[in-house]
Amino acid sequence: MKRFVFSTALLFTLIFTLQACQNPGTQTAQSEKEKTIYPKGDLAPSEFFTGNAYVHGLVDADSVFTTAAGNVVFEAGARCNWHSHPAGQILLVTAGKGYHQIEGEPKEIIRKGDVVKCPPNVSHWHGASADSSMTHIYMVPNTEKGIVEWGDAVTDEEFNSTK
Amino acid sequence: MKRFVFSTALLFTLIFTLQACQNPGTQTAQSEKEKTIYPKGDLAPSEFFTGNAYVHGLVDADSVFTTAAGNVVFEAGARCNWHSHPAGQILLVTAGKGYHQIEGEPKEIIRKGDVVKCPPNVSHWHGASADSSMTHIYMVPNTEKGIVEWGDAVTDEEFNSTK
Repeated sequence: MKRFVFSTALLFTLIFTLQACQNPGTQTAQSEKEKTIYPKGDLAPSEFFTGNAYVHGLVDADSVFTTAAGNVVFEAGARCNWHSHPAGQILLVTAGKGYHQIEGEPKEIIRKGDVVKCPPNVSHWHGASADSSMTHIYMVPNTEKGIVEWGDAVTDEEFNSTK
Repeated sequence: MKRFVFSTALLFTLIFTLQACQNPGTQTAQSEKEKTIYPKGDLAPSEFFTGNAYVHGLVDADSVFTTAAGNVVFEAGARCNWHSHPAGQILLVTAGKGYHQIEGEPKEIIRKGDVVKCPPNVSHWHGASADSSMTHIYMVPNTEKGIVEWGDAVTDEEFNSTK
């Protein structure tokens, strides 16, 4: 009987240890948080965005640096409206997988580490992919020329197009 | 004797499981890699840097966006020389802890998530802290005015100064 109790106790300890190992709980939540460089930011306005996107401003345009920059987190399926920038825009994709499309060109898949440029006064949109979130830093140069001109929302057909 | 063998076997299994749990090996290496957005880049020239820093270019200056950008990883103790930018510079600290100093001002501690601006034609230096690496994205706006003018190396006295 003593042997049975001892062995069972050891077995339960082993099972418990394995479970703790596979589900480290707090540790996982913490390392997820550590991966994020910036706070999630504010929910982007539905007037210019479809789905949930969060914007955290980093650099406000001024007359010295004439540059605006910020961080945007797009949840899967979320995207901004078609829009253009008088002096163009540069995106640095820092996490996940998303889409970018310049008007008249095929939709391109963009991934963590990619750099995307959209020329001045050319309409484009960007966002998460259908099945993954995407985070990017945006840079708008030469803001003395203007920052952004918003257009129509990106339809589901446009978002899901593979052409 | 059978009881001893069985218990010992269970005990070793438990110890082995705990060790595997604490030292997940490949898993840790993989998640470290996943944390890094960009490749480490090329070793920065000792002419302009003290210690080991690695530069990975992201955006080459051109006449359309007039912006240069890149990623720099500074190992603990590494820093760039004193230098200035004709149109200023913006730094986005994405990992670790480092130092930034504008000439005539105290050295400031900069951390992951911080945004640092240095005005046009003002001498400054940036790098890791003494005990931690630091990674930042740099943005140089209005590159039609020039990109960088290098000065003297940052001495150990300057680097370690707490004033």
